[in-house]
Amino acid sequence: MSLKLTILGCHSATPRTFAHPTAQFLDIKNHSFLIDCGEGTQVQLRKYKIKFSRINHIFISHLHGDHFFGLVGLLSTFNLYNREQELHIYGPKGIKEIVTLQFKLSNSWTKYPLIFHELGSKKSELIFEDDKITVETIPLKHRVYTNGFLFKEKSPKELHLNMTAILKYPEIEICHYHNIKKGNDFISEKGTIINNDLLTTLPSKPICYAFCSDTIYDPEIVPIIKNVDLLYHESTFLKDKKETAKTTMHSTAEEAGMIAQQALVKTLILGHYSSRYRDLTRFQQEASAFFENTHLAEEGKVFEIFPAD
Amino acid sequence: MSLKLTILGCHSATPRTFAHPTAQFLDIKNHSFLIDCGEGTQVQLRKYKIKFSRINHIFISHLHGDHFFGLVGLLSTFNLYNREQELHIYGPKGIKEIVTLQFKLSNSWTKYPLIFHELGSKKSELIFEDDKITVETIPLKHRVYTNGFLFKEKSPKELHLNMTAILKYPEIEICHYHNIKKGNDFISEKGTIINNDLLTTLPSKPICYAFCSDTIYDPEIVPIIKNVDLLYHESTFLKDKKETAKTTMHSTAEEAGMIAQQALVKTLILGHYSSRYRDLTRFQQEASAFFENTHLAEEGKVFEIFPAD
Repeated sequence: MSLKLTILGCHSATPRTFAHPTAQFLDIKNHSFLIDCGEGTQVQLRKYKIKFSRINHIFISHLHGDHFFGLVGLLSTFNLYNREQELHIYGPKGIKEIVTLQFKLSNSWTKYPLIFHELGSKKSELIFEDDKITVETIPLKHRVYTNGFLFKEKSPKELHLNMTAILKYPEIEICHYHNIKKGNDFISEKGTIINNDLLTTLPSKPICYAFCSDTIYDPEIVPIIKNVDLLYHESTFLKDKKETAKTTMHSTAEEAGMIAQQALVKTLILGHYSSRYRDLTRFQQEASAFFENTHLAEEGKVFEIFPAD
Repeated sequence: MSLKLTILGCHSATPRTFAHPTAQFLDIKNHSFLIDCGEGTQVQLRKYKIKFSRINHIFISHLHGDHFFGLVGLLSTFNLYNREQELHIYGPKGIKEIVTLQFKLSNSWTKYPLIFHELGSKKSELIFEDDKITVETIPLKHRVYTNGFLFKEKSPKELHLNMTAILKYPEIEICHYHNIKKGNDFISEKGTIINNDLLTTLPSKPICYAFCSDTIYDPEIVPIIKNVDLLYHESTFLKDKKETAKTTMHSTAEEAGMIAQQALVKTLILGHYSSRYRDLTRFQQEASAFFENTHLAEEGKVFEIFPAD
């Protein structure tokens, strides 16, 4: 059980040879999620040797080109590779029309089921759930309708077996493990009670990842992302362009640091850098003044979180 | 006066790190034309240091993704760079809807005039003309409505001055040059006649380039591309996949060679290679059996034609 996030692109606006627009690949509880899909994402997936046929869910934050212009190309590639399994797309209203129009005009359609989940709510909502994880939207304030996404492991329903302790009691056979995991004490045939506390440990805390791009500085998201293990928050500008950040509805590195500080997250990742900046370490410096455990998104960089024991 | 063609991408189907889909940059008579625009074309333009702000005309052959998925991204980039001059797009009916829908949903529009010329005719037609060149469509047979494009320099209306000869006659002053270029003899004040043939040479033959992708083998295009200096003809397959070429409405290298042979072109460029082939030299070998002066399109390769004197 761990979370692995690969940065495929972390720059804003136009794609350049060594600066690709937003795209991230998230591996969480055996799910392979793609988050945003700027132009060239499929090439980046290949470059970082990600088995992208495993992607079954794609989350698009908003309909600015640097977050979705690579989507229709990726969907076409799946088709060429004779994909058969379902693919789910979560994104703003309109995304279905964009994709279907292009397939219609190219006189083709996917051979695999393509299921659109169009989003329009301005409140956080649950958009995916299975027995292992949930995904909720994080409403963001930007120039167009935008959502971040909160990926959360579910709390395990069962306790962990403390095998060192259990093996001291030969009368506890494998058939009893299921009952002990549920929190019950062990009662032997002779009526001896062994307290559950002695036989189990608490399961590790579920891991959470919050993706927040693009957005103006907005403390209203803090309650939604409170205590997450990993927060990606856009920082298009440094503080020298604080006013530009406001008018374009983006954030500065300082503001990303402030959100991380307020939300008591464990780790902050910055990204969506404006092309005007050459030296990215200044982003880290400015955010670190508010939140120390700040890292820079870089193409190909992997952030991995293992559950605390 | 010369023609310079830069190959930006020459592979079929999905973009890969070292294999980009179709896009070519054509510099002809001070015009900068972009022909097709697969995903990632704007990055390729940067890579090969092409001043793409100079592009005023984009020609899209057909609406298969590997020929146009990079278009909307490039148009957005022009916007970010505060382009002001007109941009003309020539492509199949539907291309305007694809672009405008995406701009509408991203709540933006180009600040520069974007003019669509939607094509629907099944006959060759003149789609661009100024005092220096013409562009005509080459109707191609493919799975969707497709055009190739024929770029032709116009024949110069004036003769070239033979300056070595002219300077032998001090009585021919600069003010007479215009008249001589028009083909008139020189008559001195004393009535001496100097024959025009002695003072001029014929202008160089205008240069032509024909772009033909994607298409099944189709000798019907031969009259349109007859005698061109440079022909790009798709060759998706080798002869081992002749049947696949037919069913997918593509050509083999041999068939491209046959078209070049029949059309008596000067130079043939092959491209649009299927990803199944690693060794591209086989394309050249197979086409050369029919047409010797065959070259392989390769990314970044430049084909330049200078007028014959």
